[in-house]
Amino acid sequence: MTSAASPAYRRLSVEERRGQLLEAALVLFAHRAPEDVSLDDVAEAAGVSRPLVYRYFPGGKQQLYEAALRSSADALSRCFAEPAEGPPTERLGRVLDRYLAFVDGHDAGFSALLRGGSVVETSHTAAIVDEVRRDAAGQIFLHLGAERPGGRLGMLVRTWIAAVEAASLIWLDEGKRPPAGELRDWLVDHLVALLAASAASDPETAEVVRRLLARETAGGPVAGLARRLVPLVGEAAHLL
Amino acid sequence: MTSAASPAYRRLSVEERRGQLLEAALVLFAHRAPEDVSLDDVAEAAGVSRPLVYRYFPGGKQQLYEAALRSSADALSRCFAEPAEGPPTERLGRVLDRYLAFVDGHDAGFSALLRGGSVVETSHTAAIVDEVRRDAAGQIFLHLGAERPGGRLGMLVRTWIAAVEAASLIWLDEGKRPPAGELRDWLVDHLVALLAASAASDPETAEVVRRLLARETAGGPVAGLARRLVPLVGEAAHLL
Repeated sequence: MTSAASPAYRRLSVEERRGQLLEAALVLFAHRAPEDVSLDDVAEAAGVSRPLVYRYFPGGKQQLYEAALRSSADALSRCFAEPAEGPPTERLGRVLDRYLAFVDGHDAGFSALLRGGSVVETSHTAAIVDEVRRDAAGQIFLHLGAERPGGRLGMLVRTWIAAVEAASLIWLDEGKRPPAGELRDWLVDHLVALLAASAASDPETAEVVRRLLARETAGGPVAGLARRLVPLVGEAAHLL
Repeated sequence: MTSAASPAYRRLSVEERRGQLLEAALVLFAHRAPEDVSLDDVAEAAGVSRPLVYRYFPGGKQQLYEAALRSSADALSRCFAEPAEGPPTERLGRVLDRYLAFVDGHDAGFSALLRGGSVVETSHTAAIVDEVRRDAAGQIFLHLGAERPGGRLGMLVRTWIAAVEAASLIWLDEGKRPPAGELRDWLVDHLVALLAASAASDPETAEVVRRLLARETAGGPVAGLARRLVPLVGEAAHLL
């Protein structure tokens, strides 16, 4: 993609100009609700005229928004790729670090998109968001060694992804508190707890958890969570 | 609300007629995406003319949709009220039973609304949905004895509510499988697991969990989950 700071003395190619406009739109849509971005804003940010924006994006703001969303969705999906090496919770932690950095860098746009009710939202933009969710789920199933997950495990992972989205929105609402690292650890614990609870009644999840546990280390998040849960088990002694 | 089967020989009052039209719209919007409901459908279902529908709802389909959504949102919020008696997981189970019956009875409309991208969605409809989420969270905080929850506990509950929504949508997608009772048990386990995992690092949540555990019984869901988790702890022995 061409930088918005391309030398003005050189005529841009069609692709370069399109990239420059898209980049200006991306920055605007990342940090403002779509309602608060006008074509004039995009033209001004790119240092061009409004008619020029229309020449490249005849569909106007809607087309620019969808192009920016497509580009952001692709960038987000790339965050999910992680080598299948080392303790699974550490892989998940690294993916969540990249994901939360993305949320941090697209705060207002991310909020507006996922909260719904925006005029630029259509079945088309909803489909792009769903595609990102499917990519996220696909990567998790890969790391769980369950590429064709059964109903329970499938619901578990997709539900956790929704929980991550909700937590991200709350995090943005609360001025990005707690720090991203704490939120990441909590989201990892959340998935571990969910897997453990489902393993108790679903054989496929139990098998997945058994494989995951074998790859965890005594210094990792699962061990830490297990150790911190010990005092709680004492409180539940009357139930057992 | 007046039944749609009101005697035709009697002239309906303004309120009765409005109620009759709204009821017809509610049934249609519950089982179809808003795109698939026309004002003609509403008029036909209510046995009146299209101009009459416009006389009562001059804003047309958008106004009818918002009125139907308002009415459904109120009905859903009423599902959340539950006396603060007995084991907390059993209270939660009863609320979830009512909630899942609501989802079952509003399947297509519920899906369309929460998936986003529908033409009738506005910041107004999004605000109505958010209000229901706030009501749900408020009721849970009440039962947890934490009416002014701190950041972690607040995020936990609101995140779990998002997870319940996501699970409901997946449940509808998958032809309402597993049976509602199984889904309810899984959602209860989910919250218990989440509370336990967060108790391990958040003092307020730990205190809440301590109070909840004291009210649970040996035959209840927490005890069942704890017993089913025992074999898993053996698998994690190398971490402890």
